[in-house]
Amino acid sequence: MYDDPIAAAFGDLAADLFTTDPDLVAGFAHDESRLTERALPAGVLSPRSTHDVADMARRAHAHGVPLVARGAGSGLSGAANAPAGSVVLRTHRLAAILEVDAAERLAVVQPGVVTADLRAVAREAGLFYPPDPGSVAISTVGGNVATDAGGMCCVKYGVTGDYVLGLEVVLADGTVVRTGRRTAKGVAGYDLTSLFVGSEGTLGIITEITVRLLPAPAAAAQTLVATFPDLASAGRVVAAIAASGTAVSMLEIMDRVTLRAVDARTGMGFDPDTAAMVLAQADDQAAATTVAALALLCADGGATDVATSEDPDEAELLLEARRQALPALEALGDWLLDDVCVPRTRIVDLLEGVEAIAAAASLTIGVFGHAGDGNMHPTVIYDQSDPASRAAASRAFDAITRLALDLGGTITGEHGVGRLKTSWLAHELDPAALALQRRIKDALDPTGILNPGAVLAAD
Amino acid sequence: MYDDPIAAAFGDLAADLFTTDPDLVAGFAHDESRLTERALPAGVLSPRSTHDVADMARRAHAHGVPLVARGAGSGLSGAANAPAGSVVLRTHRLAAILEVDAAERLAVVQPGVVTADLRAVAREAGLFYPPDPGSVAISTVGGNVATDAGGMCCVKYGVTGDYVLGLEVVLADGTVVRTGRRTAKGVAGYDLTSLFVGSEGTLGIITEITVRLLPAPAAAAQTLVATFPDLASAGRVVAAIAASGTAVSMLEIMDRVTLRAVDARTGMGFDPDTAAMVLAQADDQAAATTVAALALLCADGGATDVATSEDPDEAELLLEARRQALPALEALGDWLLDDVCVPRTRIVDLLEGVEAIAAAASLTIGVFGHAGDGNMHPTVIYDQSDPASRAAASRAFDAITRLALDLGGTITGEHGVGRLKTSWLAHELDPAALALQRRIKDALDPTGILNPGAVLAAD
Repeated sequence: MYDDPIAAAFGDLAADLFTTDPDLVAGFAHDESRLTERALPAGVLSPRSTHDVADMARRAHAHGVPLVARGAGSGLSGAANAPAGSVVLRTHRLAAILEVDAAERLAVVQPGVVTADLRAVAREAGLFYPPDPGSVAISTVGGNVATDAGGMCCVKYGVTGDYVLGLEVVLADGTVVRTGRRTAKGVAGYDLTSLFVGSEGTLGIITEITVRLLPAPAAAAQTLVATFPDLASAGRVVAAIAASGTAVSMLEIMDRVTLRAVDARTGMGFDPDTAAMVLAQADDQAAATTVAALALLCADGGATDVATSEDPDEAELLLEARRQALPALEALGDWLLDDVCVPRTRIVDLLEGVEAIAAAASLTIGVFGHAGDGNMHPTVIYDQSDPASRAAASRAFDAITRLALDLGGTITGEHGVGRLKTSWLAHELDPAALALQRRIKDALDPTGILNPGAVLAAD
Repeated sequence: MYDDPIAAAFGDLAADLFTTDPDLVAGFAHDESRLTERALPAGVLSPRSTHDVADMARRAHAHGVPLVARGAGSGLSGAANAPAGSVVLRTHRLAAILEVDAAERLAVVQPGVVTADLRAVAREAGLFYPPDPGSVAISTVGGNVATDAGGMCCVKYGVTGDYVLGLEVVLADGTVVRTGRRTAKGVAGYDLTSLFVGSEGTLGIITEITVRLLPAPAAAAQTLVATFPDLASAGRVVAAIAASGTAVSMLEIMDRVTLRAVDARTGMGFDPDTAAMVLAQADDQAAATTVAALALLCADGGATDVATSEDPDEAELLLEARRQALPALEALGDWLLDDVCVPRTRIVDLLEGVEAIAAAASLTIGVFGHAGDGNMHPTVIYDQSDPASRAAASRAFDAITRLALDLGGTITGEHGVGRLKTSWLAHELDPAALALQRRIKDALDPTGILNPGAVLAAD
């Protein structure tokens, strides 16, 4: 009836559910990662319901068509890059907030809900959905769950997965399963919720998410900003704060390269001699005391300027500087963003190591990140049109990732393996652990149609 | 060479590693659960190292001998009950605290370490390992991880699994794998750590655990005790506290039956007219304010007496009353302990439902539990020597579990499925979810030698 499996699988679907229009398809071919393999997918699916997703998975399964689930496409590791011959399944029509239960402090949402919208709806109910990845204004809850997204809140509030109580998932063959619960605790069977969290669409397609919410923080956050004349002093101060377990709700760092880029983009007027800026917040009842103590610690640690503020508008402005870090670095040229996480006590070693790598390669590398977790984003600036620059950037990226492993860290703190780091996974995991990962994949997706090549390298 | 697989697998091991002495074996045949199937295992293994465990698993695998890993045997769901023909693998010689890293706030321990010992060692380092199951003084970290044990701290601090950063696990065929990380964050591959947590020895045998530790709480806990003349008032107050998200670090309830039993055991002198006691603690900087607010809430909610204390010794005494709840109920007769968790707003419905079930069956049922999580332990008292009483107790237990499900709850909040609730799992999970659980088990333990019959019913 049809010559090719794509047409056989989806050819009879209505135009609003499936398209192969090259102009439309091209817009959903890849995420925001760099130096990851890219291709043009064969088509795009736009389901309206779990029933649609299940039907589409059954069709894909029957005809052996790879399916790549996609939220906002804001990922940075290539998890949503669609291999040639695959079909992208978008979640933008699955965008309902189905329930907000204030008494039980939970919400049930479809995967296409934008994270900022969930946060806003929770806030209106007097509650708090903490996860705040840098992409919070555009990324989706489904994408956040599929990548176990982090953000600036993690030092106190943990990652996206810490808020997922239960899931509805469509398996590779179209079977719909529910995992987890709506109660505060529960141990009925294996924890499959955590298995799907962070699995990047390779084990199933998430169609509904039950998240727990927190009470709104009791007080407005107190904010501290400190600037340092050298990176090492700043690094030592953040390591000391992190290691002390001080109750900060945010602890971020930006280096000179990043600050200059943000300044160029925003005109905020940072002192050009500043080598690093540390931003911290505390949001509990002792926040003022905490921030005052941090101010002393920064001053003792060699800070040039220390400012504290209890004004929410000022805090938002300072946070905006941090949120502009990646966009500002992007404006400097082509960029390759790393996402490593090291033990808290090794942050200084990482920062100094990246400086050395940048100097040796004559490359600009901006560093910013979630210092409180040891989760840093060294960002290599290069010229994509120059093969030598491209090669140097790639080598620097590898050297940074290697350095993080050597410091006892991980190749990815929050962005995920995606397609960017599948070969690196074998450096972090031993062969037995890698084989076990593969066994899980094979058990849940025996024919390998779900996002092949993400997390684990294609066979 | 050997007639039976047990001798073939383990017959050449030294006597300190393997015994079939019936007197010794009998002591490790089952855990503390009631009405679960029991048998005499064929032998007991006592490995000294991960290497030993791997060797023993390889032997068991080669000869098809079921292996049941066992910590302290304090479980309440039969997860450590050894089927006939199986061999018990004890972890008591794997009891080293390998590392406490104060700067990184983590510890690495072997599974046989007693939980209270880990808490003490953490405390000496100025840190805090929160998990505090009722069995904390005798149960092991390995057993706690294998069951994802809860406790009184969960309302604020979460369950055991929330503190597990990484594991070393021996798989069914003797392969040793490492999961997880030592960093604050990390998303390198599927979350297999969470998969092994709570898997009750059915997916692998845990041989090393990396746990994260918290800074020691800033202040001594403030404690509140309130007594109520009727159960419903107490239930409404705890539901209100729980639903409000008040920052309590403990929120417990005991009913009249439990209080009288504790009084009989300890002579603490509770007022016999008290229908329920609520215990709460707060341990943050605003603890005094929180506890004062709770005291008002209790008084407004109909409490007979409300007492607050900032004295740690008094607090310990009150906590001791709560810790004696199960031992005290045990002294009333034979007992069957349930472990259900309902949405916080349905606690009153559960309490009233259990009262009705007790009245209809003419049974004594004591209720105590972690009210802040909705995780309650209705405990049916009966006479094991009387078949009618035994049947009535079993029916009441089933009715309570059914009630919890009907209230939107789960069949097990923290004790696990074990062998006690394998048939109930099919009531909580739909067939597709149950089949997926089975698929995971089959992928990790294809020959089914790891604790067969726990979590999932034997085929």
